[in-house]
Amino acid sequence: MELLNDEFYMRLALDMAEGASGQTGINPVVGCVVVKDGRIVGMGAHLRRGEAHAEVHALNMAGAEAQGATAYVTLEPCSHHGRTPPCCDRLIAEKVARVVVAMADPNPMVAGRGLQKLRDHGIETSVGLLEDRARALNEPFFKYISTGLPFVTLKTALTLDGRIATKTGHSKWITGADAREAVHTLRHRHQGIMVGVGTVLADDSELTTRLSVPGLHPVRIVVDSRLRTPPDARVLNGAAPTWILTTERADAEAAAVLRERGAEIIACGIGPQVDLRAAMRELGRREIGSVLLEGGGALNGNMLQAGLVDKLMLFYAAKIVGSVGTPPAFAFDGPERMSSALTLERVSIERYGADWCVTGYPDRAGRRAEEGE
Amino acid sequence: MELLNDEFYMRLALDMAEGASGQTGINPVVGCVVVKDGRIVGMGAHLRRGEAHAEVHALNMAGAEAQGATAYVTLEPCSHHGRTPPCCDRLIAEKVARVVVAMADPNPMVAGRGLQKLRDHGIETSVGLLEDRARALNEPFFKYISTGLPFVTLKTALTLDGRIATKTGHSKWITGADAREAVHTLRHRHQGIMVGVGTVLADDSELTTRLSVPGLHPVRIVVDSRLRTPPDARVLNGAAPTWILTTERADAEAAAVLRERGAEIIACGIGPQVDLRAAMRELGRREIGSVLLEGGGALNGNMLQAGLVDKLMLFYAAKIVGSVGTPPAFAFDGPERMSSALTLERVSIERYGADWCVTGYPDRAGRRAEEGE
Repeated sequence: MELLNDEFYMRLALDMAEGASGQTGINPVVGCVVVKDGRIVGMGAHLRRGEAHAEVHALNMAGAEAQGATAYVTLEPCSHHGRTPPCCDRLIAEKVARVVVAMADPNPMVAGRGLQKLRDHGIETSVGLLEDRARALNEPFFKYISTGLPFVTLKTALTLDGRIATKTGHSKWITGADAREAVHTLRHRHQGIMVGVGTVLADDSELTTRLSVPGLHPVRIVVDSRLRTPPDARVLNGAAPTWILTTERADAEAAAVLRERGAEIIACGIGPQVDLRAAMRELGRREIGSVLLEGGGALNGNMLQAGLVDKLMLFYAAKIVGSVGTPPAFAFDGPERMSSALTLERVSIERYGADWCVTGYPDRAGRRAEEGE
Repeated sequence: MELLNDEFYMRLALDMAEGASGQTGINPVVGCVVVKDGRIVGMGAHLRRGEAHAEVHALNMAGAEAQGATAYVTLEPCSHHGRTPPCCDRLIAEKVARVVVAMADPNPMVAGRGLQKLRDHGIETSVGLLEDRARALNEPFFKYISTGLPFVTLKTALTLDGRIATKTGHSKWITGADAREAVHTLRHRHQGIMVGVGTVLADDSELTTRLSVPGLHPVRIVVDSRLRTPPDARVLNGAAPTWILTTERADAEAAAVLRERGAEIIACGIGPQVDLRAAMRELGRREIGSVLLEGGGALNGNMLQAGLVDKLMLFYAAKIVGSVGTPPAFAFDGPERMSSALTLERVSIERYGADWCVTGYPDRAGRRAEEGE
């Protein structure tokens, strides 16, 4: 049984924030629960960029009950005027007595100023409750707000021997229904989905979000140096925007045909290959704060080697297809020493039916330190 | 808190059996706890082939207290005269009142006859408590007793992309200390350890059991069709027996040199490659009931494709070395369709420090059924 305490309410606020994950664009997801005299009097989450913050929803629900209440918020309340007025001012105006915050806002516009302002007005504050979970919820936001670059999650399904298809290219399906449903949930939670043109040619996937309930479609981003995307590819079906990343030397006629099919053509560098760093900067400029990278092996390898992947989610099936002639999940020329391997840190493993997902983060600091071994 | 009940005592008996795992040769491991008037009066495990069975140890400890007691045994008591007298007779002679058995003995010499004999003498019996765990403890025994072939556990350390070394062949170390300690525990628990000569040439490993406490060394078995094992290889250091499996066309002089170094040379088939099926039959004839297969990729692939692997234990490190020029864990020419992949069933995952082990069993029935897809 869960005990009724600060953690209980913060967990509820985090659950609400997580519920809104994927629907706030480059804004963070935030949840808020307001508690007075032993009962919840207000609850809210930030649901859409430009609309009310979590605290505002919750305080609206609480009405006069907010006076003397405790507010549990998953992220430090903002102290600056953005698209909406500062939440700090509202908490102060409502005479909330105590504010419990899971983590300070790393946004340089806030960064502790919100908490300070609350304290200056006699509100009791505490920070750090369930901070790890709060941080994980908004990892794309934290990267984007500090670098202007999207947070890239590399997702792939693979066999135990690290392959993404059989020797004939057959790949439907590696993982089962549960893992595939998880992937569609990931699509809902990312603003962009990125693949190489090889994957478009091999699978002709629609790259939309398909779940038992409706979800949001990410912007479909195809890395296609030579504009080989077929004009009748499903990725151009109009269900969501399609951006094709290419180079300045791309064929103008091919570009015109694809534009005619609704695609936006974006030149990233002078070629011959798409400049992936420039591409990430351009996506950030276009307010894409999170990208789900779905391969194939060549693009995965290039993105990994360029240090542009922030997180990996590897869905393993308990299958072995052998290494002879089968396509790998990560096609790149690796290090000479095992100690210089690309290493993941903060690894967790979650089961999905007969399959499981290994989640981790590239340990860039560790890699650099060990290269001198 | 664990409640005091039948399961509690059976779990203790299983713990004791597991403690003796690796030290009973082709015999099963068995534990026994005898309980009378609310307290344990006897405990035992089968500790060595040819010596007392678990029930005998426990009944010896119980003495006169055995009368009217309950005996918890992890495997059906034997009813036949083997190297020791039947345990059933002893339980009957001691006037034990009740016998709780985790599983019936699949050995055709027993197979329910033990339980029947106990019942015929008025002893209350029950069977099936914690049966899954009891079965897992003795999976090598069950295969060996019914087929005469060793139970083969394929163990390998590998990266997330299914590689066993970098492009230069560097592999020390893929996994960390915890996983390596688990592997040495596995060596203690298998009668034979098998590698290809390529692994001997690449790693020059000793293939012994090295733990913080002393362990038993398995027989070292090298698959070496052309007798390329160097006479000064560490695998010939005399710490444990070394058997070299080769073919009838192997060079007699090379064989003589290796014999001089203490190795036993065993021809398996007419060549040019070692006949792996014949090799397994020969190992079984020599009373090797369990083999830990430690690769490399070529031998792993050949054993898998020949259907000679009973279990896989894959120790993954959270590392990626890229697919270009790196040696694979399973070098074989796989199926055309993903649905015909070699699939593992009964998969479990266990963490070892920063690494984890994926354990599973090849699903031979499933594979056959789907080939016609």
